[in-house]
Amino acid sequence: MTRIQYQECIDACLESMNACNYSYVSSLKEYDLASLRESMRLDRECADICSYAVQAMTRQSPFVAGILRLCAEICEACADESSKHIHTHCQECIDACRRCAEACRLISDAVKVYA
Amino acid sequence: MTRIQYQECIDACLESMNACNYSYVSSLKEYDLASLRESMRLDRECADICSYAVQAMTRQSPFVAGILRLCAEICEACADESSKHIHTHCQECIDACRRCAEACRLISDAVKVYA
Amino acid sequence: MTRIQYQECIDACLESMNACNYSYVSSLKEYDLASLRESMRLDRECADICSYAVQAMTRQSPFVAGILRLCAEICEACADESSKHIHTHCQECIDACRRCAEACRLISDAVKVYA
Amino acid sequence: MTRIQYQECIDACLESMNACNYSYVSSLKEYDLASLRESMRLDRECADICSYAVQAMTRQSPFVAGILRLCAEICEACADESSKHIHTHCQECIDACRRCAEACRLISDAVKVYA
Repeated sequence: MTRIQYQECIDACLESMNACNYSYVSSLKEYDLASLRESMRLDRECADICSYAVQAMTRQSPFVAGILRLCAEICEACADESSKHIHTHCQECIDACRRCAEACRLISDAVKVYA
Repeated sequence: MTRIQYQECIDACLESMNACNYSYVSSLKEYDLASLRESMRLDRECADICSYAVQAMTRQSPFVAGILRLCAEICEACADESSKHIHTHCQECIDACRRCAEACRLISDAVKVYA
Repeated sequence: MTRIQYQECIDACLESMNACNYSYVSSLKEYDLASLRESMRLDRECADICSYAVQAMTRQSPFVAGILRLCAEICEACADESSKHIHTHCQECIDACRRCAEACRLISDAVKVYA
Repeated sequence: MTRIQYQECIDACLESMNACNYSYVSSLKEYDLASLRESMRLDRECADICSYAVQAMTRQSPFVAGILRLCAEICEACADESSKHIHTHCQECIDACRRCAEACRLISDAVKVYA
């Protein structure tokens, strides 16, 4: 994979990280933050793995396949949790996380596993 | 600072991380990598702090000022080292790192230090 | 600085990261988590910079001085916020963060700035 | 899993990160660093995922199983590559990485996958 082939997935990861971190800081300001406990927890998890995935792709890590599979799994879990909440920042998270999961799967299926 | 105000700096950090990581993996393939020891070392340092800075901005960290000052310092050091080498990937690093340092200083000067 | 000279500071950073992350996940389970908003936010910031500082020390980063100064600053802020709360996990945070800030300052004062 | 149950794995990850980063900086100083290209590349990969795994365990991430499986895979690859080199820092890496891989598998097999 070259830098150009990764670009779409890098962009999707950045948007997901951005949406998750925005939802996280927004949740911390919400009146009903008690209902957002699990959402906040997953927002942080998702932002962290997306950030990790971006770095891994830009340095052409030989482990991109495994890293992106993990990223897709965490994005899906975050999207599922976000879909339980009506807050705008949660709704924005769903789309960004689902798109990211899809982009990650596309690459991880295409990349040969390190061996 | 809002997400929108950070966007230019986030983009500059991403380009710098990308250029540094590309230069890093390219250096590992060079015939004369012995001459690129310090450059490779600083590429990794610079990519890591740029990645950190991006996450910090997207989560609206109260410590953005200090983080971006540090990022600017490391970007400058990486650009200085890269300017000693004629390889294309080193030359690309110089511009990306200098632009990033400038963008980081602009924000860190504007943001009130956490107190 | 050698690995051995960093060891005490590495340990202090690890304890601080551990205490902050424990306080973070504990806060998410608290009945009164609304009162812990700022504490949770700083716990994450502190855990992240401590983790970053540990990696930087183990790879003998030439920017350790600046990184540890930043780490000390964030640890102090986290300790100050934690001291406003009576929860056991917050109290544990205070000590770990203050010790870490002290250890970071000791090293950052001793290390020559990269130049 | 509690903090105490993770402790052995956290320690193994820290030792692996430490050994990999030490081998990385030592490789950069070697006369024959050209023969250590792949080793340096994997040292960085391994140090990064170990650092990530430590943070994930201290914040009781619900994705610890997947993260540690990935960490074990990368540790094994790094140990395999290190075993091709006679340098002391490479030999130290083998043991640390193998122990870490084993500790990660022990936990990831025990932890229920997030669902």
